[in-house]
Amino acid sequence: MSGEGGDERDPGGEAMLRLLLSQRAHRELLPDPVPEDAIERLLLAATHAPSAEDRQPWAFVVVRDAATRAAIGEIAAGAWRSGAREHARARLGDRLFADVDRWATGGLARAPVVIVVCGDRSRSDPRSLAASVYPAAQNLCLAAHALGLGSLFSTLATASPDLSRRLGLPDHVVPMVVVPVGLPARRLAPPRRAPVASRAWRDRWGDPW
Amino acid sequence: MSGEGGDERDPGGEAMLRLLLSQRAHRELLPDPVPEDAIERLLLAATHAPSAEDRQPWAFVVVRDAATRAAIGEIAAGAWRSGAREHARARLGDRLFADVDRWATGGLARAPVVIVVCGDRSRSDPRSLAASVYPAAQNLCLAAHALGLGSLFSTLATASPDLSRRLGLPDHVVPMVVVPVGLPARRLAPPRRAPVASRAWRDRWGDPW
Repeated sequence: MSGEGGDERDPGGEAMLRLLLSQRAHRELLPDPVPEDAIERLLLAATHAPSAEDRQPWAFVVVRDAATRAAIGEIAAGAWRSGAREHARARLGDRLFADVDRWATGGLARAPVVIVVCGDRSRSDPRSLAASVYPAAQNLCLAAHALGLGSLFSTLATASPDLSRRLGLPDHVVPMVVVPVGLPARRLAPPRRAPVASRAWRDRWGDPW
Repeated sequence: MSGEGGDERDPGGEAMLRLLLSQRAHRELLPDPVPEDAIERLLLAATHAPSAEDRQPWAFVVVRDAATRAAIGEIAAGAWRSGAREHARARLGDRLFADVDRWATGGLARAPVVIVVCGDRSRSDPRSLAASVYPAAQNLCLAAHALGLGSLFSTLATASPDLSRRLGLPDHVVPMVVVPVGLPARRLAPPRRAPVASRAWRDRWGDPW
């Protein structure tokens, strides 16, 4: 493109596209602590996402305390065992299922940092809350990836009232995404996805892209 | 960070953080056509977002046909006039309100491409659909930014049944975000946001980050 920030004038654009194409769900993280300034940069990126009417109705609880991480792990494991596991068993391949099972029953709590991304209903029309908070959570994961950190976008534990209680969330604040962050235990290849042509249409549904 | 893709080994990480911090809502776009391969790259980035159980329940209708863009513009203008405008009037500053008002009543339809990001309920648990589709829409906007294109994340027109009808969407497909794309008419400074410390807590709600 010839515009500002385009290929020729800003090679950072190409680097960014590569990063968008290589984000993975990291279910194995090293226990090494994540420096405070790196976490600050993740949060800064998250708060630069768009939101409806620029209301910025996000809130983040950055959990490093071991007991709280263990409690979040228990809450996720409980949600996993009471329904999600069975649901996933039918849908995931054997290898991915085993990975997710290990993660949901212990791996999550071993992440050195768990960031709980919340929506603040006092700052948003309820109809816009999801559209205003999930992009911020995605920015958080992408910033982690940019810094060489692994992360994962999970909603598993968010439906449990135990999570809100444990974090002391007021009634107008709802947990929406749980993002464990840490150094990746291993390098992961870029993800494979269904081809664009299987999901895109031209001008009208049914006309092939 | 010392991990793969970190600052020292991959300067692309820093470029990506800069891009995450400088995304803006572009309400004025040039009418110049956007090359097909650029659109393909946006869609590729969108389809590499995470989704619950890797179900990839997104679908994209790429609208370049002028009559269809005009129809989407009319639908957005209708939604704006019948409630959203009044709501925004009370919440936005004068200048931003005037910008949004111009965009919602004509600017949108002048974008050379309008990508309607949809959720496919046949591929997702209804409870996970938003968490699986909004990150893809954010990737789409970030990829546009990386290529020097302007875009905007809008839910304004999505609640109208007229949008689904006009695009011929089947019942199991719901429009969730409307993203106009084109060359920016002007350069925009990075956005200003509330400080991280006003939205982040340490271990538990109320303990300052």
